[in-house]
Amino acid sequence: MAVRKKSDFPVSEIRRFIEPGPIVLVSSQHKGERNIMTMGWHMVMSFEPSLIGCYVWNQNHSHELIRKSRQCVINVPTSTMADTVVGIGNTSGRDIDKFQHFNLTATKAENVDVPMIGECHANLECRLVDGTLIRTYSVFVFEVVKAHAPKTPRTPKMLHYTGDGVFITSGPTRNLRKKFRPEKL
Amino acid sequence: MAVRKKSDFPVSEIRRFIEPGPIVLVSSQHKGERNIMTMGWHMVMSFEPSLIGCYVWNQNHSHELIRKSRQCVINVPTSTMADTVVGIGNTSGRDIDKFQHFNLTATKAENVDVPMIGECHANLECRLVDGTLIRTYSVFVFEVVKAHAPKTPRTPKMLHYTGDGVFITSGPTRNLRKKFRPEKL
Repeated sequence: MAVRKKSDFPVSEIRRFIEPGPIVLVSSQHKGERNIMTMGWHMVMSFEPSLIGCYVWNQNHSHELIRKSRQCVINVPTSTMADTVVGIGNTSGRDIDKFQHFNLTATKAENVDVPMIGECHANLECRLVDGTLIRTYSVFVFEVVKAHAPKTPRTPKMLHYTGDGVFITSGPTRNLRKKFRPEKL
Repeated sequence: MAVRKKSDFPVSEIRRFIEPGPIVLVSSQHKGERNIMTMGWHMVMSFEPSLIGCYVWNQNHSHELIRKSRQCVINVPTSTMADTVVGIGNTSGRDIDKFQHFNLTATKAENVDVPMIGECHANLECRLVDGTLIRTYSVFVFEVVKAHAPKTPRTPKMLHYTGDGVFITSGPTRNLRKKFRPEKL
């Protein structure tokens, strides 16, 4: 796996990566400790500001790192990273440094003090803007404050988790743009 | 399109359909008026109880029907229904009865007074259990109280929306079960 070349990407358009529902890798850092977790439960909640709701179970080691630092990076892996995704889900940041263990490149974010995963297709720098749902639902509401993605492909082949160890990979794209009413796009 | 034969499906396992992030069709009914909308922003929030958070914009005609009746059905369409999905997104329940217009079969739910869409792969009967996020975020927290799905295939070919009229269809399945730690499945 190689570090991907990316450019600045409009935060209001990151639905492209999140709305299709891929498994993502969340990186976090607090007081010198860093971690990565897999996350499958998330949703777009707004374009502007660019909001994402994320479920981070309070038993995950990342939960406290994110809650205390109030920031994270959502990294979108491609289907070629399947083994790494499973490995990250199998292990705990209590025991290992996952960047080191999985040979992932920590790249520097611009607006948060959290390492991004260079090998992922897209990196979304996030700040916690609403923590009121953490206690009840383990849901963090983040604002994407900066996004990094390559110019092409428009959408990568992603992994979608279905439980029981079974993933669906992204299949063929269908462009139905001509069938949409312009105001519905 | 034919009405699909389904059986009772465990509500605690509906993540199979929702977690991969497909576009879904939400049917609703209130005081004799029924409607269908497309929905792309949703997330699993719990297995037991089986909770799903859903974004239903307050400009959607369905918003008030769901808010007032406190129930809906989340119907999971397959990729063969792409034209119908786009058509439903293009039109408003203010102008037409979408079941009739799109020649969809309204089947009877067991625990909610909302018609299900027979042609869809799975039907999840939902009750609103938390309406406190509606005003701030247009987010409804539903409990799935009953689910209907065929025994096979385990997961259908679904549609995932990426914005701009472009969908990704579900591609090949990858079973990585053997690589998971048992407690992580």
